[in-house]
Amino acid sequence: MGDRSLLVVVLAAGEGTRMASKTPKVLHKVAGRTMLHHVLAATAAAGATRTAVVIGPDRDDVAAEAHRVAPEAQVFVQRDRLGTAHAVLAARAALEHGADDVLVLYADTPLVRAETLARLRAPLAAGAGVAVLGFRPDDPTGYGRLVTEGDALVAIREEKDASAAERAITFCNAGLMALSGREALALLERIGNANAKGEYYLTDAVELARADGRAAVAIEAPVEEVAGVNSRVQLAEAEAILQARLRHVAMIGGATLIAPETVFFSADTTLGRDVLVEPHVVFGPGVRVGDDVVIHSFCHLEGAVLEAGVTIGPYARLRPGTRLDTGVRIGNFVETKASHIESGAKVNHLSYVGDAHVGAGANLGAGTITCNYDGFAKYRTEIGEGAFIGVNSALVAPVRIGKGAYVGTGAVITSDVPEDALAVARARQVVKDGWAKAFRARRAKPGS
Amino acid sequence: MGDRSLLVVVLAAGEGTRMASKTPKVLHKVAGRTMLHHVLAATAAAGATRTAVVIGPDRDDVAAEAHRVAPEAQVFVQRDRLGTAHAVLAARAALEHGADDVLVLYADTPLVRAETLARLRAPLAAGAGVAVLGFRPDDPTGYGRLVTEGDALVAIREEKDASAAERAITFCNAGLMALSGREALALLERIGNANAKGEYYLTDAVELARADGRAAVAIEAPVEEVAGVNSRVQLAEAEAILQARLRHVAMIGGATLIAPETVFFSADTTLGRDVLVEPHVVFGPGVRVGDDVVIHSFCHLEGAVLEAGVTIGPYARLRPGTRLDTGVRIGNFVETKASHIESGAKVNHLSYVGDAHVGAGANLGAGTITCNYDGFAKYRTEIGEGAFIGVNSALVAPVRIGKGAYVGTGAVITSDVPEDALAVARARQVVKDGWAKAFRARRAKPGS
Amino acid sequence: MGDRSLLVVVLAAGEGTRMASKTPKVLHKVAGRTMLHHVLAATAAAGATRTAVVIGPDRDDVAAEAHRVAPEAQVFVQRDRLGTAHAVLAARAALEHGADDVLVLYADTPLVRAETLARLRAPLAAGAGVAVLGFRPDDPTGYGRLVTEGDALVAIREEKDASAAERAITFCNAGLMALSGREALALLERIGNANAKGEYYLTDAVELARADGRAAVAIEAPVEEVAGVNSRVQLAEAEAILQARLRHVAMIGGATLIAPETVFFSADTTLGRDVLVEPHVVFGPGVRVGDDVVIHSFCHLEGAVLEAGVTIGPYARLRPGTRLDTGVRIGNFVETKASHIESGAKVNHLSYVGDAHVGAGANLGAGTITCNYDGFAKYRTEIGEGAFIGVNSALVAPVRIGKGAYVGTGAVITSDVPEDALAVARARQVVKDGWAKAFRARRAKPGS
Repeated sequence: MGDRSLLVVVLAAGEGTRMASKTPKVLHKVAGRTMLHHVLAATAAAGATRTAVVIGPDRDDVAAEAHRVAPEAQVFVQRDRLGTAHAVLAARAALEHGADDVLVLYADTPLVRAETLARLRAPLAAGAGVAVLGFRPDDPTGYGRLVTEGDALVAIREEKDASAAERAITFCNAGLMALSGREALALLERIGNANAKGEYYLTDAVELARADGRAAVAIEAPVEEVAGVNSRVQLAEAEAILQARLRHVAMIGGATLIAPETVFFSADTTLGRDVLVEPHVVFGPGVRVGDDVVIHSFCHLEGAVLEAGVTIGPYARLRPGTRLDTGVRIGNFVETKASHIESGAKVNHLSYVGDAHVGAGANLGAGTITCNYDGFAKYRTEIGEGAFIGVNSALVAPVRIGKGAYVGTGAVITSDVPEDALAVARARQVVKDGWAKAFRARRAKPGS
Repeated sequence: MGDRSLLVVVLAAGEGTRMASKTPKVLHKVAGRTMLHHVLAATAAAGATRTAVVIGPDRDDVAAEAHRVAPEAQVFVQRDRLGTAHAVLAARAALEHGADDVLVLYADTPLVRAETLARLRAPLAAGAGVAVLGFRPDDPTGYGRLVTEGDALVAIREEKDASAAERAITFCNAGLMALSGREALALLERIGNANAKGEYYLTDAVELARADGRAAVAIEAPVEEVAGVNSRVQLAEAEAILQARLRHVAMIGGATLIAPETVFFSADTTLGRDVLVEPHVVFGPGVRVGDDVVIHSFCHLEGAVLEAGVTIGPYARLRPGTRLDTGVRIGNFVETKASHIESGAKVNHLSYVGDAHVGAGANLGAGTITCNYDGFAKYRTEIGEGAFIGVNSALVAPVRIGKGAYVGTGAVITSDVPEDALAVARARQVVKDGWAKAFRARRAKPGS
Repeated sequence: MGDRSLLVVVLAAGEGTRMASKTPKVLHKVAGRTMLHHVLAATAAAGATRTAVVIGPDRDDVAAEAHRVAPEAQVFVQRDRLGTAHAVLAARAALEHGADDVLVLYADTPLVRAETLARLRAPLAAGAGVAVLGFRPDDPTGYGRLVTEGDALVAIREEKDASAAERAITFCNAGLMALSGREALALLERIGNANAKGEYYLTDAVELARADGRAAVAIEAPVEEVAGVNSRVQLAEAEAILQARLRHVAMIGGATLIAPETVFFSADTTLGRDVLVEPHVVFGPGVRVGDDVVIHSFCHLEGAVLEAGVTIGPYARLRPGTRLDTGVRIGNFVETKASHIESGAKVNHLSYVGDAHVGAGANLGAGTITCNYDGFAKYRTEIGEGAFIGVNSALVAPVRIGKGAYVGTGAVITSDVPEDALAVARARQVVKDGWAKAFRARRAKPGS
């Protein structure tokens, strides 16, 4: 769009009663991000110069999310619900400030792409007064129809007002609209409410613009991009569409997903080349995976960085703050959290590594647990390069295991272990001959 | 159906050879329940006054399941296999007892809904002699065709007897039938076996009723409800349909299923509002989930009650008898069984809690294991309110940890611990300087 | 094909740039096997007498896989890429050796079945000079069209050379071809490169054979069998098709897959009758499962043998070398490797059993870990029949637990335990009254 300034107005005041939730609709998540976040990310990618978010009353949570995602966004409250045009006018201050283009969209359409927003905006640069996004649903019943003549959009006809011929139109109004910034405010203010519901409809902008001699055009978008989410069923459908996109991107980029339909990404997951992901893997937000990483089945990752050549799982759970350097191996039933594990180190079985730093090439035996919490605070564990931690060891933080040190099986380590030393903490093995036989005889006795 | 009495005859004698199983077909399960159970649940919901189940010879297991699910049901044995009408007549004693309406259905159609059975029964109250359930399969080949004139059912034509015009009919016989109770027995007795196979066909009831001047009607049902299960492939298809229903109900009720297609419910699972279920979760029978519960990926629940605000997983396994009060947190690689965990308690990592009672706010460290079994019997563990159990602790039941007590890391607790006390059982840490270095040198030596 | 000899030429030199991988395309895996392996397995099943594999330069990895799968195969290198006929001629030595039939196929069509190859070959026995495999894709754009007259194949027309009428043909060239062995070499040598790309096209064989008065025929194959894999997206599609086949075979054979779409097999997985597989299970290569085995959700198996009546999971990971005798029970969060567990033994929770032999009826408590690795070598653990291993025990290999012996909770066992003896290794429990209360008071103090 070159150097044209763009004001984006995101309508996020919908109540979403069909969600049957105490959480406002636009804060429900798709691929690990709120729907509002998705829309703001798309508008940012589409080149928004200024962003206005219109929310309902008493929705500090929505305002907070808007500011978290887009700190520079202006948030406006729509006190009464008098229609879509009225909602846009809640952002009057932003409209007064002016922009070359104004883009109006809804926070419950998380799948819209920046490229589509750019296409919607394009006619404005060519002189149009208004551009409307259309789509062709399988069943157009209930949607407003886009009445077109060649490239021109003649009107948006609500179904109840449509003639039989108009009802046969399959091209429907998606609700997203681009307006020429110069006239936008004046145009919106001229929209009236002389209709059955007494509401101010944004769609009236089309006829008003045309009455002013400005062109109105319709731009077609794929159905999947503009489907609004109004229920948890539709939320799941949106999730499925977005996951399909993310899986496709991963595969095109050089990752093998053996069973893509069982792998769930977050919107921000990044995978390197020649990554192998087995079936049944879940990526929470904040995961970066390098080249040649192998992720076995049943892994769950969140907020983790995996350098090249790492292998994890099956059943590895990487929690936020996990950083695995090249060639690290995390095995089954292992949890890591806020831990940096250096290259070539191994944690293969049944372990919890939290708030720890593990040196290169260290080997943590099965059942190793870092005791990072005493009921009040968390402490750190340092394990030196090449250290070998015996099976079933508990490392009571804060504690430091020196480079190359050995910790004996079953030890509870409460003091630092020097480099190259052995630390043991274990009771001597005592054998009582015949005890088991006598025990069984006693227990097998009737009435015992 | 107002106050009309209803006799249900469930035909459960099919051998199911295509299942390739030693288990009788109707005892195979869908959504955690036998197919027979599903059908009996649907007929009970449809208002059955009396229930007769017709089974094959030597099928005590089927009889037992019938009585388990519907203790008042009468079970009849069909000794010979002489056709569907013959099978119904195995329940002669029940038919003689009489009822306003008689409903005949098959125990291998687990997806039929009570509402559909009510629709099938409705014509009887309006004076019809027989009502037949029809459906429109994608491919009608092999099915009996329902020959209709307006609302009236004229005949059920087997494919081999059908004219070319009749074969073009896509409306097929589903096998389920409602009969006017007054004439049912006499009608069934008049059915002959003068046909190629020498069998008594229930479908002949249509023509006989019409010959008596009674109306016969066909009621259409969705294909998915009446599909009989004859193989494990069809069993999986029935499972998929039922899962889709259960997922839809959960979402409409206010639960978010991020990936509904990866979540498996039992028929009796109940979910509260604003429940979040991540991908890849399996609910076995007997699970009740309260509001605002979060179930992370890879959880497996069975016979468990989760109060409001509980969070579990990923990788939590709740076994029967688990009760989690409000706000409890069960983390990864944790198994619970026959345990009541009170509000706010936490079991976050790598633990086994069996036959235990855990007080409010207690914290069980990683690797905590209740030793509830000595090879002969099971014993209980009591953990007091606010107790803190150190990492890698073994609590040897029967044992009681007092309120607010601390158990040190790596302890084996065999005696009760008083309130507010600390219990430790740990060998002293001993360090041998340079041992690891020497060990490595020794092991690295060629020929060692 | 009776006693006709068959030379198979597998073209495996494709670079597969769209895979975006450093691994050559034909070594990417489907259902646990390389694509090359699948094709060689199909040709072996189709009765290949001799096999020639044509690879690209410097592809020792492809040659090694060819020899691993088919030790008797001859591997030829195609130095330059001058077209498909040129590729086949790289195997000139094999062609010179002669065979009744020659079959040319591509190593990136892993789904082709032996039966289809037999159908393709059949016309040769009936005197045809060449037979071409055709298919009917949803969208034929881009494929060569098979121009037929009755049964005869007249020509293979590349899309760019096709007339409008020919473009309307939906029957397309799959690339697989059977040639009469007697003329094959001479025919291939007559193929010229007088075309736009200057390449030697194998498809020219059709016209040359016809010019010689030999019949050319087209054989139709299902689309799914001949789809070539050129990208990771197509690799995932091939995986999905093969998984669907494997699931179907398992169900027909008498296994219940509750949710077949969530169960992933390897090509060599074998399941017995009345096996139950819950949702979300992954079978790696080399798994044999006996009758009446129950595999709960979230299991991961590889290189394991499960005898009749075994129950595993949920969350059981069986690694290569695991052998479970009848009635063994492996529970949750348990890993086994290179271990033979005899009948009726139980490992129910949170354990690692590696390099071990466990006698019949033994019971390994929760948290049992075999310490099989000291940082340098692996050692074996022997657990006798009927032994009972207490919770949180570490068995430091090499070590032997005698028949019927007991190991106390929390023990680290470093020496052999005699039959029927009890071995304990545990520090005495010490209680410090009031310590926890004082600790909390201290920690709660501001500034502490």
